[in-house]
Amino acid sequence: MNELLPKLSTVPEGIHSPSDYLPYAKERLPPEIWRYLEEGSANNVSLQANPHAFDSIHLIPRPLSDVRSGHTKITLFGQTLAHPVILAPLAYQQLYHPHGESASAMAASAQEGQSCVSSLASQTLEDIISAAGQPLWFQLYWQENRERTLKLLQRTIAAGYNAIIFTVDAPVKQATIQLPTTIQPINLDLPAPFPALLPQQSQVFNGWMAQAPRWEDLAWLRDQTSLPLLVKGILHSEDAEKVINLGCDGLVVSNHGGRVLDGTPASLACLPPIVSAISGRGKVLFDSGIRNGRDIYKAFALGADAVMVGRPYIWGLATAGALGVAHIIRLLRDELELTMALTGTASIQEITQEKIQISRNQNRN
Amino acid sequence: MNELLPKLSTVPEGIHSPSDYLPYAKERLPPEIWRYLEEGSANNVSLQANPHAFDSIHLIPRPLSDVRSGHTKITLFGQTLAHPVILAPLAYQQLYHPHGESASAMAASAQEGQSCVSSLASQTLEDIISAAGQPLWFQLYWQENRERTLKLLQRTIAAGYNAIIFTVDAPVKQATIQLPTTIQPINLDLPAPFPALLPQQSQVFNGWMAQAPRWEDLAWLRDQTSLPLLVKGILHSEDAEKVINLGCDGLVVSNHGGRVLDGTPASLACLPPIVSAISGRGKVLFDSGIRNGRDIYKAFALGADAVMVGRPYIWGLATAGALGVAHIIRLLRDELELTMALTGTASIQEITQEKIQISRNQNRN
Amino acid sequence: MNELLPKLSTVPEGIHSPSDYLPYAKERLPPEIWRYLEEGSANNVSLQANPHAFDSIHLIPRPLSDVRSGHTKITLFGQTLAHPVILAPLAYQQLYHPHGESASAMAASAQEGQSCVSSLASQTLEDIISAAGQPLWFQLYWQENRERTLKLLQRTIAAGYNAIIFTVDAPVKQATIQLPTTIQPINLDLPAPFPALLPQQSQVFNGWMAQAPRWEDLAWLRDQTSLPLLVKGILHSEDAEKVINLGCDGLVVSNHGGRVLDGTPASLACLPPIVSAISGRGKVLFDSGIRNGRDIYKAFALGADAVMVGRPYIWGLATAGALGVAHIIRLLRDELELTMALTGTASIQEITQEKIQISRNQNRN
Amino acid sequence: MNELLPKLSTVPEGIHSPSDYLPYAKERLPPEIWRYLEEGSANNVSLQANPHAFDSIHLIPRPLSDVRSGHTKITLFGQTLAHPVILAPLAYQQLYHPHGESASAMAASAQEGQSCVSSLASQTLEDIISAAGQPLWFQLYWQENRERTLKLLQRTIAAGYNAIIFTVDAPVKQATIQLPTTIQPINLDLPAPFPALLPQQSQVFNGWMAQAPRWEDLAWLRDQTSLPLLVKGILHSEDAEKVINLGCDGLVVSNHGGRVLDGTPASLACLPPIVSAISGRGKVLFDSGIRNGRDIYKAFALGADAVMVGRPYIWGLATAGALGVAHIIRLLRDELELTMALTGTASIQEITQEKIQISRNQNRN
Repeated sequence: MNELLPKLSTVPEGIHSPSDYLPYAKERLPPEIWRYLEEGSANNVSLQANPHAFDSIHLIPRPLSDVRSGHTKITLFGQTLAHPVILAPLAYQQLYHPHGESASAMAASAQEGQSCVSSLASQTLEDIISAAGQPLWFQLYWQENRERTLKLLQRTIAAGYNAIIFTVDAPVKQATIQLPTTIQPINLDLPAPFPALLPQQSQVFNGWMAQAPRWEDLAWLRDQTSLPLLVKGILHSEDAEKVINLGCDGLVVSNHGGRVLDGTPASLACLPPIVSAISGRGKVLFDSGIRNGRDIYKAFALGADAVMVGRPYIWGLATAGALGVAHIIRLLRDELELTMALTGTASIQEITQEKIQISRNQNRN
Repeated sequence: MNELLPKLSTVPEGIHSPSDYLPYAKERLPPEIWRYLEEGSANNVSLQANPHAFDSIHLIPRPLSDVRSGHTKITLFGQTLAHPVILAPLAYQQLYHPHGESASAMAASAQEGQSCVSSLASQTLEDIISAAGQPLWFQLYWQENRERTLKLLQRTIAAGYNAIIFTVDAPVKQATIQLPTTIQPINLDLPAPFPALLPQQSQVFNGWMAQAPRWEDLAWLRDQTSLPLLVKGILHSEDAEKVINLGCDGLVVSNHGGRVLDGTPASLACLPPIVSAISGRGKVLFDSGIRNGRDIYKAFALGADAVMVGRPYIWGLATAGALGVAHIIRLLRDELELTMALTGTASIQEITQEKIQISRNQNRN
Repeated sequence: MNELLPKLSTVPEGIHSPSDYLPYAKERLPPEIWRYLEEGSANNVSLQANPHAFDSIHLIPRPLSDVRSGHTKITLFGQTLAHPVILAPLAYQQLYHPHGESASAMAASAQEGQSCVSSLASQTLEDIISAAGQPLWFQLYWQENRERTLKLLQRTIAAGYNAIIFTVDAPVKQATIQLPTTIQPINLDLPAPFPALLPQQSQVFNGWMAQAPRWEDLAWLRDQTSLPLLVKGILHSEDAEKVINLGCDGLVVSNHGGRVLDGTPASLACLPPIVSAISGRGKVLFDSGIRNGRDIYKAFALGADAVMVGRPYIWGLATAGALGVAHIIRLLRDELELTMALTGTASIQEITQEKIQISRNQNRN
Repeated sequence: MNELLPKLSTVPEGIHSPSDYLPYAKERLPPEIWRYLEEGSANNVSLQANPHAFDSIHLIPRPLSDVRSGHTKITLFGQTLAHPVILAPLAYQQLYHPHGESASAMAASAQEGQSCVSSLASQTLEDIISAAGQPLWFQLYWQENRERTLKLLQRTIAAGYNAIIFTVDAPVKQATIQLPTTIQPINLDLPAPFPALLPQQSQVFNGWMAQAPRWEDLAWLRDQTSLPLLVKGILHSEDAEKVINLGCDGLVVSNHGGRVLDGTPASLACLPPIVSAISGRGKVLFDSGIRNGRDIYKAFALGADAVMVGRPYIWGLATAGALGVAHIIRLLRDELELTMALTGTASIQEITQEKIQISRNQNRN
């Protein structure tokens, strides 16, 4: 392992955009942790497709507009947020900084936004929410069966989490990093025993998928809580419809940052048909590929109700802890405000498809 | 020649996909043999087009589906195979490993699949089938005339081969490697004398093509055996129709791995019109460009009935003999199962065109 | 800072096109000034899109045409120019050469063309016009309010400037270079105090945009002068219409050389719809991306009435002062003449859309 | 100048295609001559577009076809050629080999084909035709006026040339190489004096274009000879029609190898509309971008009646003189025969558009 640089106690000079944090984070993380953070699955086709999808959306300046009353506020499930950037539920955040998930959640609160804590958090749910000083969202993974899942859900509710994001797109857990003994999924019970397989049986179909949730489990889960329930990892509009028809409050369009099934479309490409299928009957959040405030603007133009941001805030966490995360959020908000101002857009609601042009031919080199 | 590493007696660590074997194989083979394996023809336009064609096919995750009864079985010409991966008939396999074709065939049997032995095998047909312990398929090259071809066919049938794959797309044999004296097309008679040409005559038209099979020879061949007979090397749907109308049992869509005529379309691009032209009157196998289980899924989505895999299993053979080949097959099957599970697909028959999205604009960089 | 080469007193040998000046200029400028000149905003998507957009426009040679009477003259606001190349209003030109804006304006006059002086000129308006020996155009930035703006406008008119180019696409001033104390916006008063913001207020919306001009300010500005008034930084055809409907004499289609909002379309892509919307009711100038005479031809084929050229003439200025700028202009005119001759075009008016072919698929690599 | 390798007296080993000669030629030529041979104009957009255009045309193998009677013969203006490869009129061939144009012409004759001698040949017209031992084609440049042009034409006819290729796409002569004193346009008179220009006049319009031929000059030229007359450098179908309507025997679709006007379409892209406009009323030759026999096949599929090949035969000339040129021609013919055989095509006339597929999306990387 290389000699790592200490975390910074102030934000670095000369930062203009979240990606300016990238080299600082890379320097401060062991190579295997950096790889774990940045990797996609297989050939990285989907990983690379995510940011590239934004390049075919063009922004049209509208000078001389009156945007003096402009702001980035949104209201989501009764809570008013100063901006629409929600921290995505990344696992094991103590890998990146000793203050882990608490630092991220604290930063989100300080920036008057929201964060979503992973089932695979490396700190206790109670400690994180206490650090944040406000209710948070919880990302729920299915715990092999209903009993175990319900137990985790009830603990979450008791701890004061106020929305459940149920992630369904990663039923097979393949470790790609060896966790240090000090960093573990501290909020989970030991996993249930893996199904005993006959020689002819498949590890995938008869093993992992036997422990994966199904639509009837989602229906059951809906009945276990009156909190807002969103399903994360939806790319097909028929699935989006099913989620809403089962009484959920919304969903997160996501290809898991290109980390699960290589060859999915860019997450952004799946957003418009899902927005159209839902037509306002639930909230549609967008995740996977956002790297700056212009990307946020484009996701709203294609119909998102809020966005989740992942790797970029971890760059800030790895560099300067809570201070770095708060800075990343502020940079994203500043870039979003600037994009809105230059395009003559005074509120998130005004960011519509008419504000953009979609090109099929212009590629970044 | 550089110092070569010995073959492995166990499979390497850290392998997640067939392409992880590539550097091991490259290290273990002399450069001229590696080049012979990997080369395409001319400018490699078709060689490169093959894998790239898969990148424009997108997979759509369908979480929460019930795939607990999932499997990859197919039935082909009366034989049930545990998975649809058939080893393509690559020539002179002792170039890659001393155990040659026998090792590959043995591995295919152990994985409950099928392999196809080349006319240019470096071991006797009888030894290979004996190593395999089950009937195999035989790839037949035209032997300059009917008499010589019939002789080879009859020996094949006597040896217990149970399907004939007649390759028609490479009528001109241009050696691109100097075979060592110990590795020869051991199952073939010495070639018939090349036609004596007048000064004005063309080596291509009056030489090679005078020894090449024609449609009437295929009709004749069909009458010589009641075994399943498939024609390999078909890219045009009119030719596919002719093959079926002559009573053949199927065909293999293939551009010979980009090794014959540079500038053909990607093999995958030719699959849908041929499937449509045949509409179930024969089996359509797909060959050329498959590198992982997601590619197999995509070929089925475009209508294939089974797939042939070539270079990847040779990577395994060169690295670790039969063990390596078996591992490659298992990796392909695991990846196929995972792709099916994540897309909510419980059987090969369920892999239809509705499962994918075809994009004309997204390119891998 | 590296050791810089002195400016040349003659033009370099072996120059065939403006871009041949680029390495000379780069050698002669400190790296941070070179970066400031060449940079775009954020990821440079728009910066790179500008020149690439020209590559999809093809020129069709029309040999054997009679072009013996050919010329490149245009008439603009009553003035006849020998060619349609107008020097764009780049800021702080003493950064590049001690003779600054005066050298550029002098060169434009000597080449019987026109130049536009920036609000951010590093020499006095009076000195520049005196060096030029002819009336010039003035690029006006809004000076935070009407009173301050009017003061600058009146000084401009008094100095003898004969057209006003009002730039509206860069309301937020973010310094990306530290100016030396000897180089300052010498024609401007100290900026008005930045609005005092409440804790909840946004620097963008409540700060910068409160000091930015709005449509009603443009209407007011139109009433303050009878000089030709053009608005620079228009990319949307509705805005182009508004500009004309407010009585302005024209506009400049520009994305500010890719320096303001990253992700705008290429400037060239916005030209045709604006030309179509205006349909002759005002002049449409084109800016952003022109690097040679063929590009000028293409802009006219898409409907421009004149073109502005930016970075290329600064390469000449940095290399050889007024002599270099004059040479750049002459090179552009020569290339334009040659393109006209080879395409059978005897006048600027004959450069129509029928002269070109637009391809959506051919990219420069 | 670097130490040059001597020319070879036998052809190199291991050559499979004309481009295999490229490194040999590059080694044997001084860098400035290599640059002169290979260069395009300006940014090389058209130079690179020429070969890339072929990549979007796909060849479809048609195995099992009967092509035993196949051949590559064509008949052109009464002459039967063994193959359709005509050597393009490249200038100053003694730059590449001391045997110059004579070597090229001799090789073309030996291969039973045809070659076209440039107005800018470095050997006398009489010596070249004598070396060839058969009538050749002559490429005519306009000699500033009719009298001088007629004088050159009459000398050509007297020398026994049997077809005139009148090149019209390069009216401006800009030297890009300093010719050694021993290599000169030996067949031309000293150029006529360049027009004296007034200060206001344009070197392009009033100078070069005053000495360039016009349509009426072509009509006049047609009347001066009964030999076949073709116009070279036509890309627009209206011009192709005019050429035929003036009584010419055909034309050469060419963008001058990308050497004149940068930004023209690929020559291949202009072929189909011209073929369609002419519809058999004259011969359509194709030039610019052919590098192998598959390219020749594709040009015929798009309607060409014969092809001109340029730079590739110079690679052979520079490497091994007449022997090298003859080898290049033979390689092209062999590749063409192989392509015909594999696509089931027994004669040049059978190469039609149905033999190919045109793809807009598949690019070579």
